[in-house]
Amino acid sequence: MKSYRRELWFEVKKRRGFLNITPQVEQALAESGIREGLLLCNAMHITASVFINDDEGGLHPDFEEWLEGLAPEKPYSRYRHNGFEDNADAHLKRSIMGREVVVAVTEGRLDFGPWERIFYGEFDGKRRKRVLIKIIGE
Amino acid sequence: MKSYRRELWFEVKKRRGFLNITPQVEQALAESGIREGLLLCNAMHITASVFINDDEGGLHPDFEEWLEGLAPEKPYSRYRHNGFEDNADAHLKRSIMGREVVVAVTEGRLDFGPWERIFYGEFDGKRRKRVLIKIIGE
Amino acid sequence: MKSYRRELWFEVKKRRGFLNITPQVEQALAESGIREGLLLCNAMHITASVFINDDEGGLHPDFEEWLEGLAPEKPYSRYRHNGFEDNADAHLKRSIMGREVVVAVTEGRLDFGPWERIFYGEFDGKRRKRVLIKIIGE
Repeated sequence: MKSYRRELWFEVKKRRGFLNITPQVEQALAESGIREGLLLCNAMHITASVFINDDEGGLHPDFEEWLEGLAPEKPYSRYRHNGFEDNADAHLKRSIMGREVVVAVTEGRLDFGPWERIFYGEFDGKRRKRVLIKIIGE
Repeated sequence: MKSYRRELWFEVKKRRGFLNITPQVEQALAESGIREGLLLCNAMHITASVFINDDEGGLHPDFEEWLEGLAPEKPYSRYRHNGFEDNADAHLKRSIMGREVVVAVTEGRLDFGPWERIFYGEFDGKRRKRVLIKIIGE
Repeated sequence: MKSYRRELWFEVKKRRGFLNITPQVEQALAESGIREGLLLCNAMHITASVFINDDEGGLHPDFEEWLEGLAPEKPYSRYRHNGFEDNADAHLKRSIMGREVVVAVTEGRLDFGPWERIFYGEFDGKRRKRVLIKIIGE
């Protein structure tokens, strides 16, 4: 069994945003030399997500508006967590979108359907944050 | 390390529906010959889910009604994604229910609690769509 | 490839509650002797969650209030599932928070960001329920 580990760093300039990180994950997989196995990709911060969806320009503002409706940022005072922080909504938004994805690796590639892409979802940005890639297999 | 891959195809006749796919996943596991490991089962489409819950007849219409409340299908114009499409709500519903499950394989079986069953959740049906099973282990 | 399996049992005295189970998961990992691999930790019941977030005292009542807003416990009659049961809301809450986490194992440790902790989320408590840990690797 082989294993491979890599961190990706991102800094989203706004509080919230979505980044298509599929190319970086594919590059990590190529570097690993693993042909058959499982790839884990997770946010290392609890106010960010890694998820799989469609890279379509209208969908991302739809996600933003929808998440803001389900877990509003303001008023900050609505959340007990916001004593010294103002990011309680980011913890909730990340819970809906998920921390991680697990992707099959087949013949050295991400074993994806036609529209599957991996996104980093930032809900409390303006600082450098990390994503972990771990691959095991052969 | 052994690895095994299989696709399952489904066509749900309505826009939305839930299918208990546990028997097909168990059959794939038996075919793989893997006794100890991890099994990934994921939707290959970004408007469908694979999730684990109870196979109880009342629960499924509860899920349907609840998801429709959180991410309504209509009016289609409420979503930016719906320029050429009408399925933005399906992307959101799938985000709540999840893309994938990872299940422990122990002594050649799905290592489940008493009521755990695997479901395919369709949110934009009336066409053939795929689920991927990938198993690694020994 | 090595594999390791362990069950953890919990009894939450109230209907709902969150337990930080990171120490028990770390202990299981140490016992396994696995240095590089993947660790799956999942609820074995469909009215409970395993998720990763922050161990911050204000955040947990925020989660409780937020989940109760999205999937209210009462009136019980609002759910079809509640013929012989009263826990339909627990199935929905668990769907938001998730069934499982997959964590990278690197150099014998949970490969976590600074604030990542593993929680058991109980949504239908007052009885003994189980979490499964499965680790594969070398």
